[in-house]
Amino acid sequence: MHGHLSHVPLGTIFKNRRSLYDAEVHRDIRRGICGSNTRGRGAESIVLSGGYEDDVDLGNVIYYTGQGGRDRNGIQIADQTMVGLNASLSRNVETSEPVRVIRATTDGFRYDGLFLVEDAWIGPGRLGFDVCRYRLISVEAPQRGDGRTAASGAPLSAGHIGPTTRMESLHYRLKRDGSVPDLVKKLYDYRCQICQVKIETVAGPYIEGAHLIPLARQGDDHTSNLLCLCPNHHVMLDHGAIAVQDDLSVVNREGAIVGQLGVAPDHGLNFEYLALHRTMMGFER
Amino acid sequence: MHGHLSHVPLGTIFKNRRSLYDAEVHRDIRRGICGSNTRGRGAESIVLSGGYEDDVDLGNVIYYTGQGGRDRNGIQIADQTMVGLNASLSRNVETSEPVRVIRATTDGFRYDGLFLVEDAWIGPGRLGFDVCRYRLISVEAPQRGDGRTAASGAPLSAGHIGPTTRMESLHYRLKRDGSVPDLVKKLYDYRCQICQVKIETVAGPYIEGAHLIPLARQGDDHTSNLLCLCPNHHVMLDHGAIAVQDDLSVVNREGAIVGQLGVAPDHGLNFEYLALHRTMMGFER
Repeated sequence: MHGHLSHVPLGTIFKNRRSLYDAEVHRDIRRGICGSNTRGRGAESIVLSGGYEDDVDLGNVIYYTGQGGRDRNGIQIADQTMVGLNASLSRNVETSEPVRVIRATTDGFRYDGLFLVEDAWIGPGRLGFDVCRYRLISVEAPQRGDGRTAASGAPLSAGHIGPTTRMESLHYRLKRDGSVPDLVKKLYDYRCQICQVKIETVAGPYIEGAHLIPLARQGDDHTSNLLCLCPNHHVMLDHGAIAVQDDLSVVNREGAIVGQLGVAPDHGLNFEYLALHRTMMGFER
Repeated sequence: MHGHLSHVPLGTIFKNRRSLYDAEVHRDIRRGICGSNTRGRGAESIVLSGGYEDDVDLGNVIYYTGQGGRDRNGIQIADQTMVGLNASLSRNVETSEPVRVIRATTDGFRYDGLFLVEDAWIGPGRLGFDVCRYRLISVEAPQRGDGRTAASGAPLSAGHIGPTTRMESLHYRLKRDGSVPDLVKKLYDYRCQICQVKIETVAGPYIEGAHLIPLARQGDDHTSNLLCLCPNHHVMLDHGAIAVQDDLSVVNREGAIVGQLGVAPDHGLNFEYLALHRTMMGFER
Protein backbone atom coordinates (compact mmCIF):
# COMPACT_ATOMS: atom_id res chain seq x y z
CA MET A 1 0.00 0.00 0.00
CA HIS A 2 1.48 3.31 -1.14
CA GLY A 3 0.84 6.82 0.21
CA HIS A 4 -0.61 8.17 3.44
CA LEU A 5 -2.49 5.60 5.54
CA SER A 6 -5.73 7.01 6.89
CA HIS A 7 -5.21 5.37 10.30
CA VAL A 8 -1.69 6.81 10.78
CA PRO A 9 -1.48 10.60 11.28
CA LEU A 10 1.78 12.47 10.74
CA GLY A 11 4.01 12.19 13.83
CA THR A 12 2.59 8.88 15.10
CA ILE A 13 5.22 7.05 17.15
CA PHE A 14 5.60 3.26 17.11
CA LYS A 15 7.57 1.69 19.89
CA ASN A 16 9.41 -0.84 17.75
CA ARG A 17 9.80 -2.32 14.25
CA ARG A 18 7.22 -4.97 15.09
CA SER A 19 4.45 -2.43 15.79
CA LEU A 20 5.49 -0.49 12.68
CA TYR A 21 5.09 -3.70 10.73
CA ASP A 22 1.73 -4.59 12.29
CA ALA A 23 0.31 -1.15 11.44
CA GLU A 24 1.49 -1.75 7.83
CA VAL A 25 3.46 1.51 7.90
CA HIS A 26 6.69 -0.33 7.04
CA ARG A 27 5.97 -3.88 5.94
CA ASP A 28 9.47 -5.25 6.47
CA ILE A 29 10.65 -6.16 9.94
CA ARG A 30 14.38 -5.83 9.31
CA ARG A 31 15.33 -3.91 6.17
CA GLY A 32 15.34 -0.13 5.63
CA ILE A 33 13.47 -0.23 2.32
CA CYS A 34 10.06 -1.84 1.89
CA GLY A 35 9.40 -2.47 -1.77
CA SER A 36 9.19 -5.13 -4.36
CA ASN A 37 11.88 -6.66 -6.51
CA THR A 38 9.67 -6.41 -9.57
CA ARG A 39 9.13 -3.22 -11.51
CA GLY A 40 5.98 -1.40 -10.60
CA ARG A 41 5.22 1.80 -8.74
CA GLY A 42 8.41 1.65 -6.66
CA ALA A 43 9.10 1.31 -2.93
CA GLU A 44 6.42 1.97 -0.28
CA SER A 45 8.37 3.18 2.71
CA ILE A 46 11.82 3.63 4.21
CA VAL A 47 13.19 3.71 7.74
CA LEU A 48 16.00 6.11 8.64
CA SER A 49 17.77 4.40 11.46
CA GLY A 50 20.56 6.92 11.86
CA GLY A 51 23.23 4.25 11.75
CA TYR A 52 24.52 4.84 8.22
CA GLU A 53 27.48 7.13 7.80
CA ASP A 54 26.35 8.25 4.34
CA ASP A 55 22.80 9.25 5.25
CA VAL A 56 22.34 13.02 5.47
CA ASP A 57 19.12 14.19 7.12
CA LEU A 58 18.41 17.88 6.61
CA GLY A 59 14.82 17.59 7.79
CA ASN A 60 12.86 18.29 4.62
CA VAL A 61 15.57 16.96 2.34
CA ILE A 62 17.14 13.58 2.97
CA TYR A 63 20.09 11.93 1.24
CA TYR A 64 19.42 8.24 1.88
CA THR A 65 21.72 5.28 1.37
CA GLY A 66 20.76 1.90 -0.12
CA GLN A 67 21.44 -1.46 1.37
CA GLY A 68 24.01 -4.21 0.88
CA GLY A 69 27.78 -4.45 1.09
CA ARG A 70 27.82 -4.31 4.90
CA ASP A 71 29.19 -6.90 7.29
CA ARG A 72 27.21 -8.18 10.28
CA ASN A 73 28.31 -5.18 12.32
CA GLY A 74 26.91 -2.81 9.71
CA ILE A 75 30.33 -1.74 8.43
CA GLN A 76 30.52 -1.07 4.68
CA ILE A 77 32.97 -3.60 3.25
CA ALA A 78 31.90 -3.80 -0.42
CA ASP A 79 30.21 -1.80 -3.18
CA GLN A 80 26.43 -1.57 -3.38
CA THR A 81 24.58 -2.15 -6.64
CA MET A 82 21.29 -0.78 -8.00
CA VAL A 83 19.42 -4.10 -7.81
CA GLY A 84 16.60 -5.56 -5.73
CA LEU A 85 15.20 -3.15 -3.12
CA ASN A 86 17.78 -0.51 -4.07
CA ALA A 87 16.39 -0.59 -7.62
CA SER A 88 12.86 -0.54 -6.24
CA LEU A 89 13.51 2.80 -4.50
CA SER A 90 15.10 4.22 -7.67
CA ARG A 91 11.92 3.25 -9.54
CA ASN A 92 10.08 5.94 -7.52
CA VAL A 93 12.11 8.58 -9.38
CA GLU A 94 10.43 7.51 -12.63
CA THR A 95 6.95 6.98 -11.29
CA SER A 96 6.93 10.04 -8.96
CA GLU A 97 5.32 7.78 -6.37
CA PRO A 98 6.23 9.20 -2.94
CA VAL A 99 7.47 6.97 -0.08
CA ARG A 100 6.50 7.02 3.58
CA VAL A 101 9.43 8.09 5.75
CA ILE A 102 9.89 6.74 9.25
CA ARG A 103 12.64 8.11 11.49
CA ALA A 104 14.17 6.30 14.44
CA THR A 105 13.99 8.65 17.45
CA THR A 106 14.76 8.16 21.13
CA ASP A 107 11.02 7.58 21.73
CA GLY A 108 10.62 5.03 18.96
CA PHE A 109 9.86 5.07 15.23
CA ARG A 110 8.07 8.21 14.09
CA TYR A 111 6.04 8.47 10.86
CA ASP A 112 7.18 11.72 9.19
CA GLY A 113 4.99 11.81 6.08
CA LEU A 114 5.51 11.40 2.38
CA PHE A 115 8.70 12.23 0.50
CA LEU A 116 9.31 12.29 -3.23
CA VAL A 117 12.40 10.42 -4.46
CA GLU A 118 13.88 13.10 -6.70
CA ASP A 119 17.04 11.34 -7.79
CA ALA A 120 18.89 8.04 -7.43
CA TRP A 121 22.52 7.40 -8.33
CA ILE A 122 25.61 5.49 -7.30
CA GLY A 123 28.30 7.51 -5.60
CA PRO A 124 31.32 7.14 -3.36
CA GLY A 125 30.57 6.51 0.33
CA ARG A 126 32.66 7.78 3.21
CA LEU A 127 34.32 4.40 3.67
CA GLY A 128 35.49 4.34 0.06
CA PHE A 129 32.93 1.94 -1.37
CA ASP A 130 30.21 2.79 -3.88
CA VAL A 131 26.80 3.23 -2.32
CA CYS A 132 23.34 3.71 -3.80
CA ARG A 133 22.18 7.22 -3.00
CA TYR A 134 18.74 8.80 -3.08
CA ARG A 135 17.63 12.37 -2.74
CA LEU A 136 14.25 12.64 -1.02
CA ILE A 137 12.22 15.76 -0.53
CA SER A 138 9.18 16.25 1.68
CA VAL A 139 5.99 16.81 -0.28
CA GLU A 140 4.34 18.72 2.56
CA ALA A 141 4.32 22.45 1.84
CA PRO A 142 6.77 24.49 3.95
CA GLN A 143 5.40 26.83 6.60
CA ARG A 144 5.19 30.24 5.03
CA GLY A 145 4.67 33.68 6.45
CA ASP A 146 1.78 35.85 5.32
CA GLY A 147 3.95 37.70 2.84
CA ARG A 148 3.63 35.98 -0.44
CA THR A 149 4.25 39.34 -2.00
CA ALA A 150 7.36 40.36 -3.85
CA ALA A 151 10.18 42.25 -2.23
CA SER A 152 10.37 45.35 -4.36
CA GLY A 153 8.31 47.76 -6.40
CA ALA A 154 7.36 47.44 -10.08
CA PRO A 155 8.14 43.71 -10.03
CA LEU A 156 8.08 41.08 -12.70
CA SER A 157 5.15 38.93 -11.72
CA ALA A 158 4.23 35.96 -13.83
CA GLY A 159 3.38 32.34 -13.32
CA HIS A 160 1.32 30.36 -10.96
CA ILE A 161 0.97 30.59 -7.16
CA GLY A 162 0.13 27.30 -5.43
CA PRO A 163 0.73 23.60 -6.07
CA THR A 164 1.59 22.49 -9.59
CA THR A 165 -0.39 19.70 -11.22
CA ARG A 166 1.23 16.54 -12.51
CA MET A 167 0.73 15.01 -15.91
CA GLU A 168 1.40 11.53 -17.16
CA SER A 169 3.74 11.11 -20.10
CA LEU A 170 5.27 8.17 -21.89
CA HIS A 171 9.00 8.30 -22.63
CA TYR A 172 11.34 6.15 -24.64
CA ARG A 173 14.58 6.36 -22.74
CA LEU A 174 17.97 5.20 -23.90
CA LYS A 175 18.96 2.40 -21.58
CA ARG A 176 22.34 3.49 -20.32
CA ASP A 177 24.64 1.89 -17.83
CA GLY A 178 25.08 4.20 -14.84
CA SER A 179 28.25 2.46 -13.71
CA VAL A 180 30.18 3.55 -16.83
CA PRO A 181 30.29 7.31 -16.11
CA ASP A 182 30.98 6.49 -12.46
CA LEU A 183 34.33 4.95 -13.44
CA VAL A 184 35.34 8.05 -15.40
CA LYS A 185 34.19 10.37 -12.59
CA LYS A 186 36.26 8.43 -10.07
CA LEU A 187 39.34 8.50 -12.30
CA TYR A 188 39.26 12.32 -12.26
CA ASP A 189 38.37 12.54 -8.57
CA TYR A 190 35.06 14.21 -9.53
CA ARG A 191 36.82 17.22 -11.06
CA CYS A 192 35.96 18.78 -14.42
CA GLN A 193 38.52 17.80 -17.07
CA ILE A 194 38.45 21.35 -18.41
CA CYS A 195 38.24 23.71 -15.40
CA GLN A 196 39.07 21.29 -12.54
CA VAL A 197 36.11 22.52 -10.53
CA LYS A 198 34.79 20.05 -7.94
CA ILE A 199 31.26 20.76 -6.72
CA GLU A 200 30.89 19.54 -3.14
CA THR A 201 27.33 18.90 -2.04
CA VAL A 202 26.02 17.56 1.26
CA ALA A 203 25.80 14.17 -0.46
CA GLY A 204 29.35 14.19 -1.77
CA PRO A 205 30.88 15.51 -4.99
CA TYR A 206 28.70 16.27 -8.02
CA ILE A 207 30.06 15.96 -11.56
CA GLU A 208 28.68 14.74 -14.89
CA GLY A 209 29.61 12.12 -17.46
CA ALA A 210 29.44 13.70 -20.95
CA HIS A 211 29.20 11.55 -24.09
CA LEU A 212 31.22 12.92 -27.02
CA ILE A 213 29.05 11.08 -29.55
CA PRO A 214 25.48 11.05 -28.17
CA LEU A 215 23.83 7.69 -27.58
CA ALA A 216 21.04 8.96 -29.85
CA ARG A 217 23.59 8.98 -32.70
CA GLN A 218 24.59 5.44 -31.83
CA GLY A 219 27.57 6.65 -29.81
CA ASP A 220 29.06 4.07 -27.48
CA ASP A 221 27.99 3.93 -23.84
CA HIS A 222 31.66 3.29 -23.10
CA THR A 223 34.43 5.02 -21.14
CA SER A 224 36.29 5.76 -24.40
CA ASN A 225 33.36 8.03 -25.42
CA LEU A 226 32.96 9.82 -22.07
CA LEU A 227 34.39 12.95 -20.51
CA CYS A 228 34.13 14.03 -16.87
CA LEU A 229 32.77 17.59 -16.98
CA CYS A 230 31.09 20.15 -14.72
CA PRO A 231 27.50 21.01 -15.74
CA ASN A 232 28.61 24.27 -17.41
CA HIS A 233 31.23 22.64 -19.64
CA HIS A 234 28.84 19.74 -20.35
CA VAL A 235 26.29 22.22 -21.74
CA MET A 236 28.99 23.94 -23.80
CA LEU A 237 30.18 20.62 -25.28
CA ASP A 238 26.66 19.40 -26.07
CA HIS A 239 25.58 22.66 -27.67
CA GLY A 240 28.69 23.13 -29.77
CA ALA A 241 30.00 26.17 -27.87
CA ILE A 242 33.34 24.36 -27.47
CA ALA A 243 35.23 21.45 -29.05
CA VAL A 244 38.48 19.66 -28.26
CA GLN A 245 41.39 19.58 -30.74
CA ASP A 246 43.72 16.61 -31.09
CA ASP A 247 46.35 18.44 -29.00
CA LEU A 248 43.63 18.59 -26.29
CA SER A 249 43.24 22.35 -26.47
CA VAL A 250 39.64 23.47 -26.00
CA VAL A 251 38.46 25.94 -28.65
CA ASN A 252 35.37 28.09 -29.03
CA ARG A 253 33.49 28.61 -32.30
CA GLU A 254 35.82 31.43 -33.32
CA GLY A 255 38.74 28.99 -33.02
CA ALA A 256 40.24 30.73 -30.00
CA ILE A 257 41.83 28.46 -27.38
CA VAL A 258 39.80 28.81 -24.19
CA GLY A 259 41.20 25.92 -22.15
CA GLN A 260 42.87 22.56 -22.09
CA LEU A 261 41.36 19.10 -21.57
CA GLY A 262 43.21 17.14 -18.91
CA VAL A 263 43.32 13.45 -19.88
CA ALA A 264 44.53 10.79 -17.44
CA PRO A 265 46.77 8.10 -19.00
CA ASP A 266 44.40 5.36 -17.83
CA HIS A 267 41.28 6.92 -19.34
CA GLY A 268 41.53 5.18 -22.72
CA LEU A 269 39.74 8.11 -24.35
CA ASN A 270 39.20 7.53 -28.07
CA PHE A 271 40.61 10.57 -29.89
CA GLU A 272 38.55 9.65 -32.95
CA TYR A 273 35.49 10.70 -30.97
CA LEU A 274 36.98 14.15 -30.36
CA ALA A 275 37.22 14.53 -34.16
CA LEU A 276 33.71 13.15 -34.73
CA HIS A 277 32.33 15.60 -32.16
CA ARG A 278 34.04 18.47 -34.00
CA THR A 279 32.53 17.34 -37.32
CA MET A 280 29.11 16.78 -35.79
CA MET A 281 29.04 20.28 -34.30
CA GLY A 282 30.28 21.93 -37.48
CA PHE A 283 33.79 22.83 -36.26
CA GLU A 284 35.21 20.88 -39.22
CA ARG A 285 33.36 20.17 -42.41
CA MET B 1 3.26 8.08 -41.60
CA HIS B 2 6.35 8.37 -39.36
CA GLY B 3 9.86 7.13 -40.06
CA HIS B 4 11.77 6.13 -43.19
CA LEU B 5 9.58 5.54 -46.24
CA SER B 6 10.64 2.42 -48.10
CA HIS B 7 10.17 4.08 -51.50
CA VAL B 8 12.35 7.10 -50.64
CA PRO B 9 16.08 6.41 -50.21
CA LEU B 10 18.35 8.86 -48.36
CA GLY B 11 19.39 11.69 -50.69
CA THR B 12 16.36 11.53 -52.98
CA ILE B 13 15.74 14.93 -54.58
CA PHE B 14 12.24 16.27 -55.27
CA LYS B 15 11.94 19.17 -57.66
CA ASN B 16 9.32 21.09 -55.69
CA ARG B 17 7.01 21.09 -52.65
CA ARG B 18 4.25 19.53 -54.77
CA SER B 19 6.29 16.41 -55.64
CA LEU B 20 7.44 16.18 -51.99
CA TYR B 21 3.79 16.23 -51.00
CA ASP B 22 2.74 13.66 -53.60
CA ALA B 23 5.45 11.23 -52.46
CA GLU B 24 4.11 11.68 -48.89
CA VAL B 25 7.57 12.72 -47.68
CA HIS B 26 6.23 16.02 -46.37
CA ARG B 27 2.46 16.06 -46.33
CA ASP B 28 2.00 19.80 -46.14
CA ILE B 29 2.36 21.91 -49.22
CA ARG B 30 3.24 25.18 -47.50
CA ARG B 31 4.33 24.89 -43.89
CA GLY B 32 7.72 23.78 -42.56
CA ILE B 33 6.34 21.34 -40.00
CA CYS B 34 4.04 18.47 -40.93
CA GLY B 35 2.29 17.18 -37.84
CA SER B 36 -0.99 17.12 -36.06
CA ASN B 37 -2.48 19.57 -33.63
CA THR B 38 -3.56 16.76 -31.35
CA ARG B 39 -1.21 14.99 -28.98
CA GLY B 40 0.15 11.73 -30.31
CA ARG B 41 3.51 10.61 -31.58
CA GLY B 42 4.58 14.09 -32.63
CA ALA B 43 5.45 15.66 -35.99
CA GLU B 44 6.28 13.54 -39.08
CA SER B 45 8.65 15.72 -41.05
CA ILE B 46 10.18 19.18 -41.36
CA VAL B 47 11.52 21.21 -44.26
CA LEU B 48 14.59 23.42 -43.78
CA SER B 49 14.11 26.16 -46.29
CA GLY B 50 17.14 28.20 -45.31
CA GLY B 51 15.12 31.38 -45.04
CA TYR B 52 14.93 31.67 -41.28
CA GLU B 53 17.55 33.74 -39.54
CA ASP B 54 17.42 31.64 -36.36
CA ASP B 55 17.91 28.22 -38.00
CA VAL B 56 21.42 26.85 -37.50
CA ASP B 57 22.34 23.89 -39.70
CA LEU B 58 25.52 22.13 -38.58
CA GLY B 59 24.89 19.11 -40.77
CA ASN B 60 24.27 16.38 -38.21
CA VAL B 61 22.92 18.77 -35.62
CA ILE B 62 20.23 21.28 -36.51
CA TYR B 63 18.77 24.10 -34.42
CA TYR B 64 15.37 24.58 -36.02
CA THR B 65 12.89 27.40 -35.55
CA GLY B 66 9.12 27.06 -35.20
CA GLN B 67 6.50 28.94 -37.15
CA GLY B 68 4.30 31.96 -36.57
CA GLY B 69 4.86 35.60 -35.74
CA ARG B 70 6.09 36.44 -39.26
CA ASP B 71 4.60 38.92 -41.70
CA ARG B 72 3.84 38.07 -45.34
CA ASN B 73 7.47 38.77 -46.26
CA GLY B 74 8.66 36.23 -43.68
CA ILE B 75 9.99 38.88 -41.28
CA GLN B 76 9.60 38.06 -37.58
CA ILE B 77 7.31 40.73 -36.12
CA ALA B 78 5.87 38.97 -33.04
CA ASP B 79 6.63 36.25 -30.48
CA GLN B 80 6.04 32.60 -31.33
CA THR B 81 4.22 30.30 -28.93
CA MET B 82 4.45 26.55 -28.31
CA VAL B 83 1.03 25.70 -29.73
CA GLY B 84 -0.30 23.91 -32.80
CA LEU B 85 2.40 22.53 -35.08
CA ASN B 86 5.13 24.03 -32.89
CA ALA B 87 3.78 21.97 -29.98
CA SER B 88 3.51 18.95 -32.26
CA LEU B 89 7.28 19.05 -32.94
CA SER B 90 8.03 19.48 -29.23
CA ARG B 91 5.98 16.34 -28.58
CA ASN B 92 8.69 14.34 -30.40
CA VAL B 93 11.05 15.14 -27.51
CA GLU B 94 8.82 13.13 -25.19
CA THR B 95 7.99 10.30 -27.55
CA SER B 96 11.51 9.98 -29.05
CA GLU B 97 9.80 9.65 -32.44
CA PRO B 98 12.28 10.88 -35.06
CA VAL B 99 11.25 13.27 -37.86
CA ARG B 100 12.14 13.15 -41.55
CA VAL B 101 14.34 16.10 -42.49
CA ILE B 102 14.13 17.66 -45.95
CA ARG B 103 16.59 20.38 -46.97
CA ALA B 104 16.04 22.95 -49.68
CA THR B 105 19.06 22.81 -52.03
CA THR B 106 19.79 24.47 -55.36
CA ASP B 107 18.66 21.24 -57.11
CA GLY B 108 15.41 20.94 -55.19
CA PHE B 109 14.23 19.39 -51.93
CA ARG B 110 16.52 16.64 -50.65
CA TYR B 111 15.44 13.96 -48.15
CA ASP B 112 18.25 13.79 -45.55
CA GLY B 113 17.02 11.02 -43.26
CA LEU B 114 15.71 10.80 -39.73
CA PHE B 115 16.59 13.16 -36.91
CA LEU B 116 15.72 12.89 -33.23
CA VAL B 117 14.24 16.00 -31.61
CA GLU B 118 16.40 16.20 -28.51
CA ASP B 119 15.07 19.39 -26.99
CA ALA B 120 12.45 22.08 -27.53
CA TRP B 121 12.29 25.46 -25.83
CA ILE B 122 11.41 29.10 -26.33
CA GLY B 123 14.34 31.46 -26.70
CA PRO B 124 15.22 34.89 -28.02
CA GLY B 125 15.52 35.15 -31.81
CA ARG B 126 17.91 37.44 -33.64
CA LEU B 127 15.19 39.96 -34.34
CA GLY B 128 14.35 40.29 -30.66
CA PHE B 129 11.18 38.22 -30.58
CA ASP B 130 10.75 34.87 -28.80
CA VAL B 131 10.92 31.90 -31.13
CA CYS B 132 10.28 28.19 -30.62
CA ARG B 133 13.57 26.36 -30.92
CA TYR B 134 14.34 22.70 -31.47
CA ARG B 135 17.58 20.80 -31.30
CA LEU B 136 17.65 17.93 -33.80
CA ILE B 137 20.32 15.30 -34.14
CA SER B 138 20.80 12.82 -36.97
CA VAL B 139 20.13 9.25 -35.90
CA GLU B 140 22.39 7.81 -38.61
CA ALA B 141 25.68 6.63 -37.10
CA PRO B 142 28.66 8.87 -37.92
CA GLN B 143 31.33 7.54 -40.27
CA ARG B 144 34.07 6.10 -38.13
CA GLY B 145 37.61 5.03 -38.84
CA ASP B 146 38.74 1.50 -38.16
CA GLY B 147 40.24 2.46 -34.84
CA ARG B 148 37.63 1.94 -32.23
CA THR B 149 40.51 1.30 -29.85
CA ALA B 150 41.54 3.60 -27.06
CA ALA B 151 44.34 6.11 -27.36
CA SER B 152 46.68 5.05 -24.60
CA GLY B 153 48.01 2.02 -22.74
CA ALA B 154 46.47 0.40 -19.66
CA PRO B 155 43.13 2.10 -20.30
CA LEU B 156 39.94 2.14 -18.37
CA SER B 157 37.59 0.16 -20.56
CA ALA B 158 34.02 -0.38 -19.47
CA GLY B 159 30.60 -0.13 -20.99
CA HIS B 160 28.97 -1.04 -24.20
CA ILE B 161 30.18 -0.59 -27.79
CA GLY B 162 27.41 -0.13 -30.38
CA PRO B 163 23.86 1.23 -30.42
CA THR B 164 22.01 1.58 -27.13
CA THR B 165 18.55 0.09 -26.77
CA ARG B 166 15.54 2.15 -25.81
CA MET B 167 13.04 1.35 -23.11
CA GLU B 168 9.57 2.64 -22.53
CA SER B 169 8.83 4.35 -19.24
CA LEU B 170 5.90 6.19 -17.76
CA HIS B 171 6.58 9.47 -16.01
CA TYR B 172 4.48 11.81 -13.92
CA ARG B 173 5.82 15.22 -14.71
CA LEU B 174 5.09 18.46 -12.94
CA LYS B 175 3.28 20.62 -15.43
CA ARG B 176 5.33 23.79 -15.44
CA ASP B 177 4.97 26.91 -17.48
CA GLY B 178 8.07 27.36 -19.65
CA SER B 179 7.36 31.05 -20.21
CA VAL B 180 7.88 31.89 -16.52
CA PRO B 181 11.63 31.15 -16.31
CA ASP B 182 12.03 32.83 -19.73
CA LEU B 183 10.98 36.16 -18.23
CA VAL B 184 13.54 35.86 -15.43
CA LYS B 185 16.28 34.78 -17.87
CA LYS B 186 15.57 37.77 -20.09
CA LEU B 187 15.61 40.17 -17.13
CA TYR B 188 19.20 39.10 -16.34
CA ASP B 189 20.27 39.01 -20.00
CA TYR B 190 20.92 35.24 -19.66
CA ARG B 191 23.67 35.77 -17.07
CA CYS B 192 24.03 33.83 -13.82
CA GLN B 193 22.87 35.93 -10.86
CA ILE B 194 25.83 34.62 -8.84
CA CYS B 195 28.84 34.46 -11.19
CA GLN B 196 27.54 36.53 -14.17
CA VAL B 197 28.66 33.83 -16.62
CA LYS B 198 26.78 33.78 -19.95
CA ILE B 199 27.07 30.53 -21.90
CA GLU B 200 26.84 31.29 -25.62
CA THR B 201 25.82 28.34 -27.78
CA VAL B 202 25.21 28.18 -31.53
CA ALA B 203 21.51 28.49 -30.71
CA GLY B 204 21.86 31.54 -28.49
CA PRO B 205 22.54 31.94 -24.78
CA TYR B 206 21.98 29.04 -22.38
CA ILE B 207 20.99 29.65 -18.74
CA GLU B 208 18.65 27.94 -16.29
CA GLY B 209 15.67 28.96 -14.19
CA ALA B 210 16.14 27.63 -10.64
CA HIS B 211 13.21 27.30 -8.24
CA LEU B 212 14.08 28.20 -4.63
CA ILE B 213 11.22 26.09 -3.27
CA PRO B 214 10.88 23.05 -5.56
CA LEU B 215 7.57 22.49 -7.31
CA ALA B 216 7.59 19.05 -5.70
CA ARG B 217 7.32 20.82 -2.33
CA GLN B 218 4.41 22.88 -3.61
CA GLY B 219 6.71 25.80 -4.40
CA ASP B 220 5.23 28.37 -6.73
CA ASP B 221 5.89 28.21 -10.47
CA HIS B 222 6.21 31.98 -10.28
CA THR B 223 8.92 34.56 -10.98
CA SER B 224 9.09 35.40 -7.24
CA ASN B 225 10.37 31.84 -6.60
CA LEU B 226 12.89 31.71 -9.47
CA LEU B 227 16.55 32.58 -9.83
CA CYS B 228 18.51 32.81 -13.08
CA LEU B 229 21.56 30.59 -12.58
CA CYS B 230 24.26 28.83 -14.60
CA PRO B 231 24.07 25.01 -14.44
CA ASN B 232 26.90 24.84 -11.87
CA HIS B 233 25.28 27.25 -9.41
CA HIS B 234 21.88 25.62 -10.04
CA VAL B 235 23.32 22.25 -8.91
CA MET B 236 24.90 23.91 -5.85
CA LEU B 237 21.60 25.58 -4.86
CA ASP B 238 19.53 22.42 -5.36
CA HIS B 239 21.95 20.20 -3.45
CA GLY B 240 22.42 22.54 -0.52
CA ALA B 241 26.07 23.41 -1.26
CA ILE B 242 25.14 27.09 -1.12
CA ALA B 243 22.35 29.28 0.25
CA VAL B 244 21.53 32.98 0.03
CA GLN B 245 21.34 35.19 3.14
CA ASP B 246 18.91 38.09 3.47
CA ASP B 247 21.74 40.53 2.65
CA LEU B 248 22.09 38.54 -0.65
CA SER B 249 25.51 37.14 0.26
CA VAL B 250 25.97 33.56 -0.94
CA VAL B 251 27.33 31.24 1.75
CA ASN B 252 28.62 27.68 1.73
CA ARG B 253 27.83 25.07 4.37
CA GLU B 254 30.66 26.29 6.58
CA GLY B 255 29.01 29.74 6.58
CA ALA B 256 31.81 31.36 4.55
CA ILE B 257 30.72 34.01 2.04
CA VAL B 258 31.52 32.71 -1.44
CA GLY B 259 29.66 35.22 -3.59
CA GLN B 260 26.83 37.68 -3.90
CA LEU B 261 23.42 37.30 -5.56
CA GLY B 262 22.67 40.12 -7.98
CA VAL B 263 18.96 40.97 -7.85
CA ALA B 264 17.36 43.33 -10.36
CA PRO B 265 14.86 45.82 -8.87
CA ASP B 266 12.15 44.56 -11.22
CA HIS B 267 12.58 40.89 -10.33
CA GLY B 268 10.06 40.83 -7.48
CA LEU B 269 12.00 38.04 -5.79
CA ASN B 270 10.30 36.88 -2.60
CA PHE B 271 12.94 37.02 0.15
CA GLU B 272 10.84 34.65 2.25
CA TYR B 273 11.77 31.93 -0.23
CA LEU B 274 15.48 32.55 0.38
CA ALA B 275 14.82 31.87 4.08
CA LEU B 276 12.67 28.80 3.33
CA HIS B 277 15.42 27.43 1.09
CA ARG B 278 17.95 27.87 3.92
CA THR B 279 15.66 26.05 6.34
CA MET B 280 14.88 23.30 3.84
CA MET B 281 18.56 22.64 3.19
CA GLY B 282 19.48 22.68 6.89
CA PHE B 283 21.35 26.01 6.92
CA GLU B 284 18.99 27.22 9.65
CA ARG B 285 17.10 24.97 12.03
